[in-house]
Amino acid sequence: MSQHSLSGKPFGRLLLTGAGGNLGRQLRGALADWADTVRISDITELGETAPHEEARRVDLADREAVMEMVEGVDAIVHLGGISIDAPFDDLLEANIRGTYNLYEAARKHGVKRIVFASSNHVTGFHPVTSVLDTDAPHRPDSLYGVTKCFGESLSRYYFDRFGIETVCLRIGSSFEEPKNARMLVTFLSYGDFIELVRCSLFTNRAGHAVVYGVSDNPACWWDNAKARFLGYRPRDSSQAYADRFAASAPNAGFAGPAQQFQGGPFVLGEPMPGAER
Amino acid sequence: MSQHSLSGKPFGRLLLTGAGGNLGRQLRGALADWADTVRISDITELGETAPHEEARRVDLADREAVMEMVEGVDAIVHLGGISIDAPFDDLLEANIRGTYNLYEAARKHGVKRIVFASSNHVTGFHPVTSVLDTDAPHRPDSLYGVTKCFGESLSRYYFDRFGIETVCLRIGSSFEEPKNARMLVTFLSYGDFIELVRCSLFTNRAGHAVVYGVSDNPACWWDNAKARFLGYRPRDSSQAYADRFAASAPNAGFAGPAQQFQGGPFVLGEPMPGAER
Amino acid sequence: MSQHSLSGKPFGRLLLTGAGGNLGRQLRGALADWADTVRISDITELGETAPHEEARRVDLADREAVMEMVEGVDAIVHLGGISIDAPFDDLLEANIRGTYNLYEAARKHGVKRIVFASSNHVTGFHPVTSVLDTDAPHRPDSLYGVTKCFGESLSRYYFDRFGIETVCLRIGSSFEEPKNARMLVTFLSYGDFIELVRCSLFTNRAGHAVVYGVSDNPACWWDNAKARFLGYRPRDSSQAYADRFAASAPNAGFAGPAQQFQGGPFVLGEPMPGAER
Amino acid sequence: MSQHSLSGKPFGRLLLTGAGGNLGRQLRGALADWADTVRISDITELGETAPHEEARRVDLADREAVMEMVEGVDAIVHLGGISIDAPFDDLLEANIRGTYNLYEAARKHGVKRIVFASSNHVTGFHPVTSVLDTDAPHRPDSLYGVTKCFGESLSRYYFDRFGIETVCLRIGSSFEEPKNARMLVTFLSYGDFIELVRCSLFTNRAGHAVVYGVSDNPACWWDNAKARFLGYRPRDSSQAYADRFAASAPNAGFAGPAQQFQGGPFVLGEPMPGAER
Amino acid sequence: MSQHSLSGKPFGRLLLTGAGGNLGRQLRGALADWADTVRISDITELGETAPHEEARRVDLADREAVMEMVEGVDAIVHLGGISIDAPFDDLLEANIRGTYNLYEAARKHGVKRIVFASSNHVTGFHPVTSVLDTDAPHRPDSLYGVTKCFGESLSRYYFDRFGIETVCLRIGSSFEEPKNARMLVTFLSYGDFIELVRCSLFTNRAGHAVVYGVSDNPACWWDNAKARFLGYRPRDSSQAYADRFAASAPNAGFAGPAQQFQGGPFVLGEPMPGAER
Amino acid sequence: MSQHSLSGKPFGRLLLTGAGGNLGRQLRGALADWADTVRISDITELGETAPHEEARRVDLADREAVMEMVEGVDAIVHLGGISIDAPFDDLLEANIRGTYNLYEAARKHGVKRIVFASSNHVTGFHPVTSVLDTDAPHRPDSLYGVTKCFGESLSRYYFDRFGIETVCLRIGSSFEEPKNARMLVTFLSYGDFIELVRCSLFTNRAGHAVVYGVSDNPACWWDNAKARFLGYRPRDSSQAYADRFAASAPNAGFAGPAQQFQGGPFVLGEPMPGAER
Repeated sequence: MSQHSLSGKPFGRLLLTGAGGNLGRQLRGALADWADTVRISDITELGETAPHEEARRVDLADREAVMEMVEGVDAIVHLGGISIDAPFDDLLEANIRGTYNLYEAARKHGVKRIVFASSNHVTGFHPVTSVLDTDAPHRPDSLYGVTKCFGESLSRYYFDRFGIETVCLRIGSSFEEPKNARMLVTFLSYGDFIELVRCSLFTNRAGHAVVYGVSDNPACWWDNAKARFLGYRPRDSSQAYADRFAASAPNAGFAGPAQQFQGGPFVLGEPMPGAER
Repeated sequence: MSQHSLSGKPFGRLLLTGAGGNLGRQLRGALADWADTVRISDITELGETAPHEEARRVDLADREAVMEMVEGVDAIVHLGGISIDAPFDDLLEANIRGTYNLYEAARKHGVKRIVFASSNHVTGFHPVTSVLDTDAPHRPDSLYGVTKCFGESLSRYYFDRFGIETVCLRIGSSFEEPKNARMLVTFLSYGDFIELVRCSLFTNRAGHAVVYGVSDNPACWWDNAKARFLGYRPRDSSQAYADRFAASAPNAGFAGPAQQFQGGPFVLGEPMPGAER
Repeated sequence: MSQHSLSGKPFGRLLLTGAGGNLGRQLRGALADWADTVRISDITELGETAPHEEARRVDLADREAVMEMVEGVDAIVHLGGISIDAPFDDLLEANIRGTYNLYEAARKHGVKRIVFASSNHVTGFHPVTSVLDTDAPHRPDSLYGVTKCFGESLSRYYFDRFGIETVCLRIGSSFEEPKNARMLVTFLSYGDFIELVRCSLFTNRAGHAVVYGVSDNPACWWDNAKARFLGYRPRDSSQAYADRFAASAPNAGFAGPAQQFQGGPFVLGEPMPGAER
Repeated sequence: MSQHSLSGKPFGRLLLTGAGGNLGRQLRGALADWADTVRISDITELGETAPHEEARRVDLADREAVMEMVEGVDAIVHLGGISIDAPFDDLLEANIRGTYNLYEAARKHGVKRIVFASSNHVTGFHPVTSVLDTDAPHRPDSLYGVTKCFGESLSRYYFDRFGIETVCLRIGSSFEEPKNARMLVTFLSYGDFIELVRCSLFTNRAGHAVVYGVSDNPACWWDNAKARFLGYRPRDSSQAYADRFAASAPNAGFAGPAQQFQGGPFVLGEPMPGAER
Repeated sequence: MSQHSLSGKPFGRLLLTGAGGNLGRQLRGALADWADTVRISDITELGETAPHEEARRVDLADREAVMEMVEGVDAIVHLGGISIDAPFDDLLEANIRGTYNLYEAARKHGVKRIVFASSNHVTGFHPVTSVLDTDAPHRPDSLYGVTKCFGESLSRYYFDRFGIETVCLRIGSSFEEPKNARMLVTFLSYGDFIELVRCSLFTNRAGHAVVYGVSDNPACWWDNAKARFLGYRPRDSSQAYADRFAASAPNAGFAGPAQQFQGGPFVLGEPMPGAER
Repeated sequence: MSQHSLSGKPFGRLLLTGAGGNLGRQLRGALADWADTVRISDITELGETAPHEEARRVDLADREAVMEMVEGVDAIVHLGGISIDAPFDDLLEANIRGTYNLYEAARKHGVKRIVFASSNHVTGFHPVTSVLDTDAPHRPDSLYGVTKCFGESLSRYYFDRFGIETVCLRIGSSFEEPKNARMLVTFLSYGDFIELVRCSLFTNRAGHAVVYGVSDNPACWWDNAKARFLGYRPRDSSQAYADRFAASAPNAGFAGPAQQFQGGPFVLGEPMPGAER
């Protein structure tokens, strides 16, 4: 573990991967309050940085670059990798090799806490008429979901074997607003997302935890009761957007798989052939 | 399935059975907002109807009349039948033969969603010191409760075999106000009852669901966690009435069965002999 | 309860309904060892009787005849009613009204133990890749199965309310030999069937018990662990017949519902219209 | 059971043991509203009493004194005994012999309801990353915790055998304010403590119940869902104090047992040798 | 831990408490095969000893005597204490103070494995129609049972806190033969008892384990599935004795508590007043 | 799916990957009885083949070679890949990319049943004092175990999405004889291994099943109750070898991780750096 904060902030240096993505951009502001230095990384150029930020352009599949990126940090928020369905060879490099590289680097550099962006798509083939707790068995709805299952299994191993704690965030749909009827159930407001990361970083002991990233929406597929020790209490809800998507009667008998399973349209994706990265 | 709404309401035509009863009267107003036409039926005369209503006087035990009643509707709220303990032969006609007739008619006419008024009396022989979830085993407290178990089993079959979705509402005590100490626990306000029917009709997929119909009362015997996908969130509570019924110390050692089991006085009903209807 | 045995046999008089059916005929011999008098009944003529037997021709839907049939017996083995899928009106009379009549008669005459022939078809819509314990939820695969669910619910009520104990036997396929591949899993030998009835009659306390009637077959869908207090230990197996039905490779992708659900061909039965009895 | 209230209060006479302790002092005011007479006892001198109070100085290990103390009361709130880790011989007298004496006296004098101050230390060796429900197995974190397990077992016996109802309160940390980071999770405000005792005394049937005594804090190790029938709804939260104790980053890899287990520093107490009382 | 065997036997010195009792006498022979020296103790005179045995007359309530008794042993089979219902003060000395003394001595002398004779009476108030696994909640049927609950809780603490492993044997009825109908269910043959102790002593890791001590009897209330890691497989059965106790029909409706609960006649014992030892 | 057997054997052509390994060699004989043609493959040269065999030398990481290997087969027994801990880059190619290639090929060629050699090392970080059922959460004990978790997740996806059935065999230790004390628990005889593959290939419906590959050994960490529908009944046991490894007393307090966790020495493997294949 590296040096601690000189300024009284809780962390000396935090690493945020995937900092250029949708959720990464949301977090950058919050991280400033929690650490003297925020190291941000992405596979693409990150543009301007704030004075407390260090930018690193890193391909997660590059073991040496990852090793260097992790050096000197106190904890990691790992949003990096591919976050939609994609050709398997791409997912393999970014989400499998990349996640392995990150945990190996954490082990070598003594990092003890990682917040890992898993996904609700690790359980997307459960029906929409089920309510899952955090022990529900994996039922990935896509190759993307399969690679997130890998990340959860790998992080479990690094906890049992090396004591590196991980909170796996099974993120629902985190956008400015819900975009369709499914997101009335899966919506995670930006505010609640940030609060969830905060709880995951600051809880005294995390062990290897799984928690669904979802706001306090009226309808709900996921039950975080077993993760209550993290202290996460959502403050937002999709309620305000309910009227936008409730116009028509259900077509119970004729609904396709995208209506039957929690993963929604993900369950329809044709697996893509191996492709050049 | 019949024609859809011409006016932009979610349903073209909804059927409400038992429309002349206590709860049926509460629903009639709400249904007007959800469908162009509301067909209302009861075994007794229904009196005046609103312009959007069609009244049918139907004995549920009459197969042909039921078949006709169901024709052309998009979904059914089935409150009809006998809702208190009664001689078995009466229950048999109204709640067993009648419910079978309704589901057969739904199958023949392609209706795909039924909201079925089950009852907390399907589990009334569980002790008051238990909290039941929606998978709790049937323990009916009366012949009435047994016939509601039949309705739950029958609707499960029609879902597994024919894809007809049902939400079984295990209704607590739905009145203007709680009338006794037991109802402080079982109270379902009219507003929450209507909201529960709304969720049951409008949820995109219902499968075969069981949910307790109860407001957010301080003490609680029933846990709807596994039915959270329906989106039902009670807004009312019996709290305001708590003082009316809390005057005396418990007589723990001397309480009779009506105090020991959730079904309350139902567990004391002598079974009635077969009687003419 | 009536008089006890004069001759030292455990029971004075046992009643066997459905005595003319396949399983009834198997039991008649065994019952002779357990009771001074065996009252046998069926809706059809029973033919010659042994000296210790009393024959009664009774339609279970006839309340008075049932009341008379039950008078003076110590315990009942209730195999009567319809044991295949049939028009609902027939099932209603035999399995619903008939079972109610039997329990009412037991209550009036003080009979305290009933062995009830339920059926594996109360759970026949569970997939063949599940192993069910005795608490598995009802998923009837036919209207016949629905009426057996009714019998289980009714007997639960008579136990909770009046202390009449019932053992519900969810009988698999009880024949001389398995007749098809499904029966390699569901086979209950005649010997094991008789042993199961013996345990159900003689266990000191039965409460309201559910047990699957199945031999010790190699493949198994049902787990009787929670009914081990009954002392039932199957001695036979379908193993000896395995070669007859194992000739072809599985057609996993193309199997129809009869291969996917435990109920087998029952799940395919078209519901029959109401018919004259 | 003794005479009932003459003044219209729910109880005629309540007994409060441990009345001189921290929590006992909190309760004295509330009990005045619930009973005509409040008998208060402690091993030490209790000082001045209010007009409705009767003070008794009693060593719980003194069987005859306890017998006398219990005579004529309608219900008991048993906070007495040692509430911190201590030499085993002391715990044996106060918490084992003393609790036995109390229950024997309740049995002889016909008292039917006891609210027993158990402790979260009966489950203190569960990890801080678990959320326990009220059925979680005992894992005491200290000899003190072991003696509270004894009290829970003993009271279960007195319920099953003699029908004496007990609510076991597994009290968290009940002080004016949380005093350290652990108490942000375990905090029970005085107001919520009083409300919990009120629910435990007034619920119509309590059976043998277990409930965690904790406010509605952000992070939570304990789930009272199965005790919802008691009607306890905490109104306070440790949220307001969160900032006082959240200053530093977690030291995940290096945390000692006091950070790993719910019991906190209790798990570190060296067992003390037997000592003279 | 003391010196290891010089002769090639697995243990150097084993301690057997309660060596003068029924089960103690059965074990003495077997222990000779497993240890160079067997230290045997009891509160009464033990008579002649074999060359490999060391006899100690010890009152378990005498802390110093217990401390001395435990010195130099590798593992302990603790059958000592009172094994029937008795006045509480006697049980307190022998089973509560005595068990505490034993564990404190084990801790001080570095003994790491104890086989503790618990009892089926820790769960004796479960109904005879339940099948319990090793996680079933305590429901003691007697003060004796309550003290065995204490032993299980105490040993859990010594495992979590000090790493001392215990196997809690919830012994059924271990005699030469079953003596009544209840023992057809609870029978533990002497051979199976010895085998169970052998497994408990020799399994590489025991943690804190609970296992029911019962043979492979036809009817069964207890399920050891979660203790299968111990390797215990009963070889005997009460089957051979079944005919002795099966003569009469069940009296379902009239059975008293001794027939309703697993503890049998224990549930009827009046609690005894405190008595001089 | 390809052509069926011409000769009356159940399968026309079966594919066995990893045919050159220890278990592959055991299966070759058995497969001859089940299929006209057995295609065998391995990354190394397979030597002489029988007339009914077709040999293919294939690197599983080579997508095109795998696609060709799978063409024309009815079902697959997939033992290929790396079956010990190894550098991650090697595991990635053989067990992650290789397994993906196999399932993609199965999808394209319409193969509907795969028997997948998973491993007990997917749950190896559960303690040896636990008994796991087939729903136990993944706790891999090595990077090797993590890649087998990937295979289980991937095959779940191919079942939910494409209906390709897989039986995941969590193989224990399958050798001629147990080689150490741990293998007394994990031993799977060659005969039982072949029987398990037979059940997995021939069960009419497999869905996505998980089953532990273990013989009927005295001590047991794994419970296959939920997989009983497969019909697997082990016939062998490690009992005969028990004496070889039971010589010494347990060293409970001092046992290292290899004694504490089911994975044994696997839990000690240092993760290996990425390496060239």
